[in-house]
Amino acid sequence: MAETTTTTLKDELIDQAGATPGDRIRVVLPDGTVHEGRLMPTHSFSRPGTLVLKLDNGYNIGLNTPEGTKLDLVAPEPAVSVPERKAPKGDKTLPTVQILGTGGTIASYVDYRTGAVHPAKRAEDLALMVPEVFDIANIRSKVVVEMFSEDMQPTEWQQIAEEVAKAFEAGARGVVIPHGTDTMGYTAAALAFMLPQLPGPVVLVGAQRSSDRPSSDAAMNLKAAVRIAATAHLGEVVVVMHDESDDTRLAIHRGVRVRKMHTSRRDAFRSINHPPLGYLEDDEVLLAAHIRPTTPLSEQKDGKVPRFLAMDEEVSMIQSYPGLWPDHILDVVKKGTILVGTGLGHVARRCLDAIRECTARGAYVVMTSQCLYGRTNMHVYATGRDLIHAGVISGEDMLPETAYVKLMWVLGQTQDPDEVRRNLHTNLVGEMDERTEMTTYLE
Amino acid sequence: MAETTTTTLKDELIDQAGATPGDRIRVVLPDGTVHEGRLMPTHSFSRPGTLVLKLDNGYNIGLNTPEGTKLDLVAPEPAVSVPERKAPKGDKTLPTVQILGTGGTIASYVDYRTGAVHPAKRAEDLALMVPEVFDIANIRSKVVVEMFSEDMQPTEWQQIAEEVAKAFEAGARGVVIPHGTDTMGYTAAALAFMLPQLPGPVVLVGAQRSSDRPSSDAAMNLKAAVRIAATAHLGEVVVVMHDESDDTRLAIHRGVRVRKMHTSRRDAFRSINHPPLGYLEDDEVLLAAHIRPTTPLSEQKDGKVPRFLAMDEEVSMIQSYPGLWPDHILDVVKKGTILVGTGLGHVARRCLDAIRECTARGAYVVMTSQCLYGRTNMHVYATGRDLIHAGVISGEDMLPETAYVKLMWVLGQTQDPDEVRRNLHTNLVGEMDERTEMTTYLE
Repeated sequence: MAETTTTTLKDELIDQAGATPGDRIRVVLPDGTVHEGRLMPTHSFSRPGTLVLKLDNGYNIGLNTPEGTKLDLVAPEPAVSVPERKAPKGDKTLPTVQILGTGGTIASYVDYRTGAVHPAKRAEDLALMVPEVFDIANIRSKVVVEMFSEDMQPTEWQQIAEEVAKAFEAGARGVVIPHGTDTMGYTAAALAFMLPQLPGPVVLVGAQRSSDRPSSDAAMNLKAAVRIAATAHLGEVVVVMHDESDDTRLAIHRGVRVRKMHTSRRDAFRSINHPPLGYLEDDEVLLAAHIRPTTPLSEQKDGKVPRFLAMDEEVSMIQSYPGLWPDHILDVVKKGTILVGTGLGHVARRCLDAIRECTARGAYVVMTSQCLYGRTNMHVYATGRDLIHAGVISGEDMLPETAYVKLMWVLGQTQDPDEVRRNLHTNLVGEMDERTEMTTYLE
Repeated sequence: MAETTTTTLKDELIDQAGATPGDRIRVVLPDGTVHEGRLMPTHSFSRPGTLVLKLDNGYNIGLNTPEGTKLDLVAPEPAVSVPERKAPKGDKTLPTVQILGTGGTIASYVDYRTGAVHPAKRAEDLALMVPEVFDIANIRSKVVVEMFSEDMQPTEWQQIAEEVAKAFEAGARGVVIPHGTDTMGYTAAALAFMLPQLPGPVVLVGAQRSSDRPSSDAAMNLKAAVRIAATAHLGEVVVVMHDESDDTRLAIHRGVRVRKMHTSRRDAFRSINHPPLGYLEDDEVLLAAHIRPTTPLSEQKDGKVPRFLAMDEEVSMIQSYPGLWPDHILDVVKKGTILVGTGLGHVARRCLDAIRECTARGAYVVMTSQCLYGRTNMHVYATGRDLIHAGVISGEDMLPETAYVKLMWVLGQTQDPDEVRRNLHTNLVGEMDERTEMTTYLE
C-alpha cells in the first residue's frame, strides 16, 4: 500500500500547533466536542484526512477535522533515547523454533517514544516483545506477510504453508505463527488441510489486546506458543490462546475445531464439538490422548514435508434465515457452497428447487448448522431428507468455517465428483467425528 | 399441502406384506442392508416413494425401496382401544392462558396405537400432552399455523402477533406459543418488535426431543411456559427452555437476546450478551430485576394491544469469510443487509467499494459479529473506521439474527432515512445495550 502524500486540513492543524506524533494534544471540534490524547503517527493504513488520537483508555479514535476544528499542543512528549534492541545470539543447544510473522494485534510493536502501536517490520521485533522466549528456544524469525487478518486470502495461506514446510526442512522443531485473531481459525484450518503430515507443532497465536495495554495477552500467548513449538510432541496445526479471562491457563485448540466466540475477551477462542488438545499451565504443557503424533522428516518422501497447497476459490458460504430468497442461493453458488442451516441442518422448503438446480449443474452443497455446537442430521425430519435427495452433503459436526475451507481445499486437489464426495464424507485431519461428545458444549 | 395419491413400489410392498402403520416390519434392500422398525403412516410431508420406519432408538429413517427390496411383517401392532381424550372443563377461577399452536417438535402428538409422531391438529391436543396445565390455568387453545419452523416467513410472524394481541384483548393473562426450535429465536425477536407494549407474558416454547422419546423435554417445557404465562409479571416476549441438560431448571430468555446454540441438546437455547430474565426451578418463577413490566390494557389506547406488524422483506444477511467476493454483496443487497463480520466487525478491504456502492444507492448495511458474543467496535482498527465512512451502521452487541429481524421491522415502519438510522441506533425493546456484561460469555 503506498504512503499517501496529500496534504489535508488535519496536517495543517498539526503543523500550526507544532505537534509531532507522541505529543499530547487537545482537539476541539466545531460542535464543541473535546478530545484529548496522544497524536498518533500517520501510517499506510490511515485515511488521509483523519487524525488519530490514542485516548487514555488505550484505544485509538479517528477524528474528522472539518473547517473550524481547533488543535492545541498540551504537552510535548519528552525526548527519550530508546536503547537499540537486538536479538540475543541464538542458543544452538536449544530446540529451534521458527517464528513466521503475518500481522495482527499480536505483532503490533509498541514504540515507547510515541506510544504508537505499529506493525513489527523487523523479524526480531516479534520475539523481542517477550525476551524470555530466547531462554526457551533458538529463535529464528521472518515476516511472511503483513496485513489485517480480515484481508487474508487463500494466496496468503499458501505462502504461509510453504514457509512452514521450508522451516521444518531447514531444521526447525516447531513453528509459531503470530496472526490477527479475526480470521485465525480460517487460516488454522487451511494450514491443517495443506500440511497433513507434520514433523512438529505449528502453533498459531494471537492477542486480543495490543501490547500497549496493561491487559495485553500478547506476551503470555507468544511465550506459550514458543514453548509448545519447542517441546510438544504434536504433529498438528493448533491455536493457542487464553483459556480463561485471567492468566492462569492457556488452551491448545485443534486448528480445524476452533472458533473465535467473543469479540474482545482474551479467552475468545473455543474448541467446538471437540475438547482442546491440551493446556499450558505454570509453563507445563499437558497434552490430551487424542492428538496426532509427529511424522519425522526421515519417514517422509525425500525428507520433505508434504504440502498440498491448491485451493479452489469458487466456494461461498450462505447462512439460512427466514427470508432467504432462492435467488440469493442461485446468485452466489459457483462450484460449491456451505449452507449454514438452522437446527439439524435445514433451510426453508421454498429454497429446495434452487438447491436442486445448483447440484444438478455439478455444484457441491454442504450442510452445516448455525447452532455451531452439535451436528447436522438430515434423517430426522422430512426437510432434511428432501435436502439429501436434492444432493446436499451433510457436514456432520464440522464448523461452517472449517467446512468452507475444506471444500475449497478438496476442490483444489481433485475435480473428480466421486473423489470430491468421498473426501467430503471422510474425516481427513480431525475436522469431523462420527460421534460428538455432548460434554464439549459451551466449555 | 395436498395428500399424494401416487401408488409406488413402496405401497405395493406394504400391501403384499399385509402391513399397516404401527406394525413392526423388516426391510431388506437389494444390497443386503436390513432395517427393522415400526412402519410409519404416510402424511402430507412424506415423499411419495419413501418408506418411513421408526427405529428402536426413536428416530425415523426414510428408505428408498428400489426394485428387489423385500418387506416382511415381523409383528402386527396389537389392537388397543385408545380412550378418547377430552380437555377438562376450564377452571374459570384460574388465570386464562391462550395457547397458540404453530407446529414444530413440541406440537407433535403421539398416536400410541401406531407409535407415530404427527402434528397436533386439534387445538386441545397440545395441552392434553401435559394434563397438569389445566391445574395451573384456564387453558384456551388454537392452532394458528402448522409448519416446520424453518419454513416460517414474516407473514406467519404477523399472523401470530395478531393472534397474540387478540388473545390479550379477549382477556388472556398470558400467551404460550409452542414453536419449532429451528427458528424460534427469529420469531421471538419479530414478536418483540411487533408487540412492544404487552399486558402480560408471551412465552415461546419448544422441544428438542419429540414426546415419543423417553428424553423428551416437551412436557416439562410446556408446563413451565404455562406457569410463566399464568403468573409472571412480565410484559415481554420470552423463550422458555431447559437451562441444563437435566431437568432441574428452565431459563427465561429475552426474545431479542436468545439463540439456539446446539443442534440437539435440551439446553440448546442461550441468552447471548445479556443474562436470562429469570429461571423456573421447582415450579417457582424467579425473575431478574431487569425485566420489562406489563402494560395493562386499561392504560393503552382504546384498551387495545398496540401492534406494529409491517415488515420489509428486502433485507438479507451475509456472513463475511476470507473469500467473500464483492459481487456476492452486490448481488444480494436490496434495501438492506446484515453483515456478519469477523471480530469487532470487519470485512476484507476488497469488499469496501461494494459496500460503498450499496449505501450510496440508499441501502442500509448493519454490522454484527460472527463471534456472537461481545460487541462490534469499528473505532479500534482502520478497517472498522473505513466501514463507518462507507456508511455502515454498528449493530453494537445485537445478535446477527435479531439485527436482521430489526432491520426488516424498522423498514416496515418507516422509509425515512433519518428515522431508519435513528431506530437502528436506538435500543427499542432490549435488543442492544451500551455496555455488555462480560460475565454473560458462554453461560
